[in-house]
Amino acid sequence: MTGKFIVIEGLEGAGKTTAIRTVATILNQNNICDLQFTREPGGTPIAEALRNIIKNGLDHEPLTDKAELLMLYAARIQLIDNVIKPALKAGRWVIGDRHDLSTQAYQGGGRQLDKVFIETLKTQVLGDFKPDLTLYLDVEPQIGLMRARSRGELDRIEQQSLPFFERIRDRYLALAQQDSTIAVIDATKSIDDVTMQIQTILTSWLATQVITL
Amino acid sequence: MTGKFIVIEGLEGAGKTTAIRTVATILNQNNICDLQFTREPGGTPIAEALRNIIKNGLDHEPLTDKAELLMLYAARIQLIDNVIKPALKAGRWVIGDRHDLSTQAYQGGGRQLDKVFIETLKTQVLGDFKPDLTLYLDVEPQIGLMRARSRGELDRIEQQSLPFFERIRDRYLALAQQDSTIAVIDATKSIDDVTMQIQTILTSWLATQVITL
Repeated sequence: MTGKFIVIEGLEGAGKTTAIRTVATILNQNNICDLQFTREPGGTPIAEALRNIIKNGLDHEPLTDKAELLMLYAARIQLIDNVIKPALKAGRWVIGDRHDLSTQAYQGGGRQLDKVFIETLKTQVLGDFKPDLTLYLDVEPQIGLMRARSRGELDRIEQQSLPFFERIRDRYLALAQQDSTIAVIDATKSIDDVTMQIQTILTSWLATQVITL
Repeated sequence: MTGKFIVIEGLEGAGKTTAIRTVATILNQNNICDLQFTREPGGTPIAEALRNIIKNGLDHEPLTDKAELLMLYAARIQLIDNVIKPALKAGRWVIGDRHDLSTQAYQGGGRQLDKVFIETLKTQVLGDFKPDLTLYLDVEPQIGLMRARSRGELDRIEQQSLPFFERIRDRYLALAQQDSTIAVIDATKSIDDVTMQIQTILTSWLATQVITL
């Protein structure tokens, strides 16, 4: 019996951290207690070293968009091969704070890097590995950024302009429409409301998974 | 007047360091004195951080072949955009200790990663940027490794088996045959002989460049 891989996605300030706790609680209530939490980029020593460069830069050297993209996929395959796949194989469920959809949205939509190239990277690096379920917390960038800013200092990516985040949201929504494993949550609502939405989606999804449990 | 990019390639122990000094001396004798030296992977703060992980690993985490490949291209585009292109534009000549041909040979030939994928990465990440001249120092792996081992401890890549290095040499030779900007030097010969070969090739190549100088 292998585990499942559930990913939480969304803009800065969408409420991913709270959603991750909600998902964990619901899984526990369904007697799924062997959970592993990951975050991307990061989650292994090498991936965290790459995350640090992506988030904070190094010695004021400009990080090119292409190097950022390549480092994100390098970090991702390290996490998949060394953490996620072994956990799933051991029967643990993995809850991911971001995964490949973030790259599609941020580097494809936000930075407007070539879609075909990102698609090639995804296919060649990840193969057919993908999350079993993705919860995308949809929020207007203004609201998300306001929440994120109230938390403190912004990193290299969070300092981008509003149109950058609007392109990201558009790409998230477009990709969610094409993929039945991605559920869209209205994250502008109150925490209680968002928790209810996650409860409804996750519970009905779990019901479809019972056969293979 | 832009500079030229000359790259020295070859297996461990082929004599790249001596060859770089020889090339610099010959350029100086031809009144080309504004030289910049680079090494790959590396040559910028971010690229050196990536080199360190590629060469030495981190916290004993297995580095996947794909992450290694992606990190090599991330390091390369950082070096090209932040060091090599600005230097060439300023009229400096750049002498590179390894460049893209190493990835074709080591990751393509040695690690047998998908040729088409590496070709796509090269095209998408580097565009049409390439060295003006590459000197490939050809040496049988046994001889090169014997020389490299006599220098001391081997890194993560140098610890590979003989067939790994034989595949690299085969790929180097095959690629050199297809590209008129790559000259093959017989590096099993004495230092004096190798210096003579470099002198002959570089001098005749410089003669063809005079018009654009």
